[in-house]
Amino acid sequence: MSKSKLTEARRPRGLEDRGPAAIEATRQMLETIRQVYERYGFEPVETPLMEYTDALGKFLPDQDRPNAGVFSFQDDDEQWLSLRYDLTAPLARYVAENFDKLPKPYRSYRVGPVFRNEKPGPGRFRQFMQFDADTVGASSVAADAENCMMFADAMEALGIPRGSYVVKVNNRKVLDGIMEAIGIGGPEYAGTRLTVLRAIDKMDKFPKEEIGKLLTVGRWEGGEVGKGDFTKGAGLTTDQANLLLSTFASGAVLAPPISKEVAEKAKGQVLKLQGSNETWLAMPTSGSAFQTMEIWIKKLPSVPENLRVGIDELKSIDELVKKCGYEDFRIRIDPSVVRGLEYYTGPVYEVELTFEVAGEDGKPVRFGSVGGGGRYDGLIGRFREEDVPATGISIGVSRLQAALTHLGKLNATAPQGPVVVTVMDRERLAEYQQMVSELRNAGVRAELYLGDAAGFGAQMKYCSRRNSPLAIIQGSDEAAKGEVQIKDLIKGAVLAAEAKSITDREEYLKRQAEVQYSVAREGLVAAVKKALGV
Amino acid sequence: MSKSKLTEARRPRGLEDRGPAAIEATRQMLETIRQVYERYGFEPVETPLMEYTDALGKFLPDQDRPNAGVFSFQDDDEQWLSLRYDLTAPLARYVAENFDKLPKPYRSYRVGPVFRNEKPGPGRFRQFMQFDADTVGASSVAADAENCMMFADAMEALGIPRGSYVVKVNNRKVLDGIMEAIGIGGPEYAGTRLTVLRAIDKMDKFPKEEIGKLLTVGRWEGGEVGKGDFTKGAGLTTDQANLLLSTFASGAVLAPPISKEVAEKAKGQVLKLQGSNETWLAMPTSGSAFQTMEIWIKKLPSVPENLRVGIDELKSIDELVKKCGYEDFRIRIDPSVVRGLEYYTGPVYEVELTFEVAGEDGKPVRFGSVGGGGRYDGLIGRFREEDVPATGISIGVSRLQAALTHLGKLNATAPQGPVVVTVMDRERLAEYQQMVSELRNAGVRAELYLGDAAGFGAQMKYCSRRNSPLAIIQGSDEAAKGEVQIKDLIKGAVLAAEAKSITDREEYLKRQAEVQYSVAREGLVAAVKKALGV
Repeated sequence: MSKSKLTEARRPRGLEDRGPAAIEATRQMLETIRQVYERYGFEPVETPLMEYTDALGKFLPDQDRPNAGVFSFQDDDEQWLSLRYDLTAPLARYVAENFDKLPKPYRSYRVGPVFRNEKPGPGRFRQFMQFDADTVGASSVAADAENCMMFADAMEALGIPRGSYVVKVNNRKVLDGIMEAIGIGGPEYAGTRLTVLRAIDKMDKFPKEEIGKLLTVGRWEGGEVGKGDFTKGAGLTTDQANLLLSTFASGAVLAPPISKEVAEKAKGQVLKLQGSNETWLAMPTSGSAFQTMEIWIKKLPSVPENLRVGIDELKSIDELVKKCGYEDFRIRIDPSVVRGLEYYTGPVYEVELTFEVAGEDGKPVRFGSVGGGGRYDGLIGRFREEDVPATGISIGVSRLQAALTHLGKLNATAPQGPVVVTVMDRERLAEYQQMVSELRNAGVRAELYLGDAAGFGAQMKYCSRRNSPLAIIQGSDEAAKGEVQIKDLIKGAVLAAEAKSITDREEYLKRQAEVQYSVAREGLVAAVKKALGV
Repeated sequence: MSKSKLTEARRPRGLEDRGPAAIEATRQMLETIRQVYERYGFEPVETPLMEYTDALGKFLPDQDRPNAGVFSFQDDDEQWLSLRYDLTAPLARYVAENFDKLPKPYRSYRVGPVFRNEKPGPGRFRQFMQFDADTVGASSVAADAENCMMFADAMEALGIPRGSYVVKVNNRKVLDGIMEAIGIGGPEYAGTRLTVLRAIDKMDKFPKEEIGKLLTVGRWEGGEVGKGDFTKGAGLTTDQANLLLSTFASGAVLAPPISKEVAEKAKGQVLKLQGSNETWLAMPTSGSAFQTMEIWIKKLPSVPENLRVGIDELKSIDELVKKCGYEDFRIRIDPSVVRGLEYYTGPVYEVELTFEVAGEDGKPVRFGSVGGGGRYDGLIGRFREEDVPATGISIGVSRLQAALTHLGKLNATAPQGPVVVTVMDRERLAEYQQMVSELRNAGVRAELYLGDAAGFGAQMKYCSRRNSPLAIIQGSDEAAKGEVQIKDLIKGAVLAAEAKSITDREEYLKRQAEVQYSVAREGLVAAVKKALGV
């Protein structure tokens, strides 16, 4: 049959189809994370996948492309709707709408797909899954300390070894305080500060001098004027930029290299330098981060109140997590953490996986961030007369799944297939169907071969593709005798592989009889259960 | 603080927020359905929530509003994307795109949200959840018989009693055959046939004479000319319409009323007439449906091949399900079943819950359909030179959840809350946090009170709202003694309720000591576990 016009079957760019192994792995991961969140006292809530565009607000980090980033469409009453781009903005709408009904503090978790209308790339999808937990109505940084500990507990529950992850903590008040101190504090510099934060956020991607360009005159993607795209700079002076670079630079980069021997003694307490097997860097302690901050403060022209409060909050968080047994190499104060989202107002954190994987260019790179979070005291306040303190974390499920697969922590093989009852005589279909039904009623995963291919070979090929443990066969001979044959496909595969090494005929026949054998029709279910060991 | 411009916190129309009890109920339901689908040999697959609009096609039943029904938006390369409106059209795209990689038959299940850009109403949402299973590459109606049995098994696994559901089966070939016989067979009548099917589909909503109007001259919503909206009729003659009405009318409606006594003897085999407690109708058997069809056939001016094939297929399905022990009151041939979707080409089925609930006007109505499905041999063929046989079912999870809640089959209460460690001295926050951490490490669901209210009353109120089993209290007195108090909130509530009836002071004090007591600080975890009975 020839058709005049065929539709092309294609998945839109940046979206994924997922098979049984990936789905099962996600299911296990989500269950593990859920148990951790539950243990911390959080309870589930679900909001729809779309919201009014104005309720979501515009807080995406990629503001280089205005009006982009979000999938939006008009409702039939002309109002704009958007697919949610994270799980925090919809929570803010939910809490504001149900404020009086909810217990305060309100501790909830949410899991589900979010959407970004961005340019897709390797490992960068336009639909991906997040698993969030948030505490609304708690101004104490104890809530932030809990978020950090929950991050760490979630990583360990998922099987990521201690030392292979670190939760890095900073405070927007510190960042804001420093910016205020160098003279870009007032509302007239709001745009400048955002550009500065975005530049600092790229600290782990670009060398220091490139960040310097982003802070001052701007940067050409290709490295020289006129080459590639141009990113506008923040317009700071060189002095301002240098001060920022020295304060915001990651503590890890500032520490002196140590020998491999020393590093191995301090196992789990050091981080390997990116791209090198020889040079090791001592991991800074939170204590040394605080010392570094005191050094900055002396360099600053003034010390804004915000900066002091921010540092005190970080000290409180540090004290709380230490008291609960979380060491520096699990939860660490790190002044380089920014987190791109505009709505953060206090402590921010991110969980980073520290082991190396092959990067896009084949060179080893640190796996990097699999989640983040922070305090956003103003987000719910967009809807209400008063601000409402709130803080939360978000785990990037898809990215974390890639990490766990890499570590071999997920059972990424497809589960065992069904027992297949083959169709040897079409006219006895109802009898075969009855066998299937009996097996299912006994709790055995089973199916009738429903394909159009009549041949035995095609049916065996199907069993193999489905990863079936057993095939059930009843030709007219067996039917006449009231019997049915069981073919053990797993033992069959083993025998086929070992056949050459079996020289004794008796032995071979004995093995063969264990692979395929007849049982009485009425004993089918019992024999199948025995063969499956259930 | 007064703000100049607040955003209104509102959820868009026709969308739901869901709390812990509903989420937990859904989780249990999905797990139950998943186990049934798995037992039938199906394996999971996931596709994205959006597809190219042309890949989805337009198969929604509500074609009265052209270009409506779907949420669509343009991608940055000008191509149109749509949110999926069901889980079948995306499967067709997936199978067509991955055809050679998949085992044939390909048996898969999918669960997730779908979207309809329709007018929302009570119980009618614009985002809702479906749970589908499909067999691709099986032309045998044995696959359709399996779908019907799986429907029945899923209902029973969910706790819906036998006799409270029925899977009704028909065949589009029968419907098409009859339409051909009355002279509306050719491609020039495609639009007429669709209008006819839509009218027949409303058989359970409107009386026969209203359906007659839809088949002929059209129908005014208000019942008389010019009143309310007008629905265009199919333009059939009265003779054609009457023939259709007599054949498509539900078998149930044609059966004679029987007495309640006879009905009760035949328990589970009869259906109660809608809206009446007195009149009972005998439920037609599949056998009687076949007899009825033979009567129609004699009335028809001709007997198209399609009609004969359709009836034979229904007989095969009936034979297969009977052989597996599914009686007429569980899976039944019913010529009134249409299913609105345009893409069906063979057997169609729907699972209906037969018990009554209060309708919108307070009068009892049958709960109705919670799922449907059928054969759609042409849908994958839109993408390929050749058609590909395929058949599947879809369970409406949200609607089924409403039914199960009504039947009391879901544990719809929120789960127990966390143990709450109260904050009596702000300066000892780290000590409290440490207690919480110890409890969590022992697997106890626990949290620190993170609210800003310092009073004990406010903290107790929070515990109550969170449904907490225990509160942990350590004021400065207890701290000095190295002790901590445990308050059993469940026993406390019982004691409060029974207090009046306890006259003996000793007895009361004894009970009170079981509600609140001191333990050594180092024995906290053991005491909490004992109190929780874990």
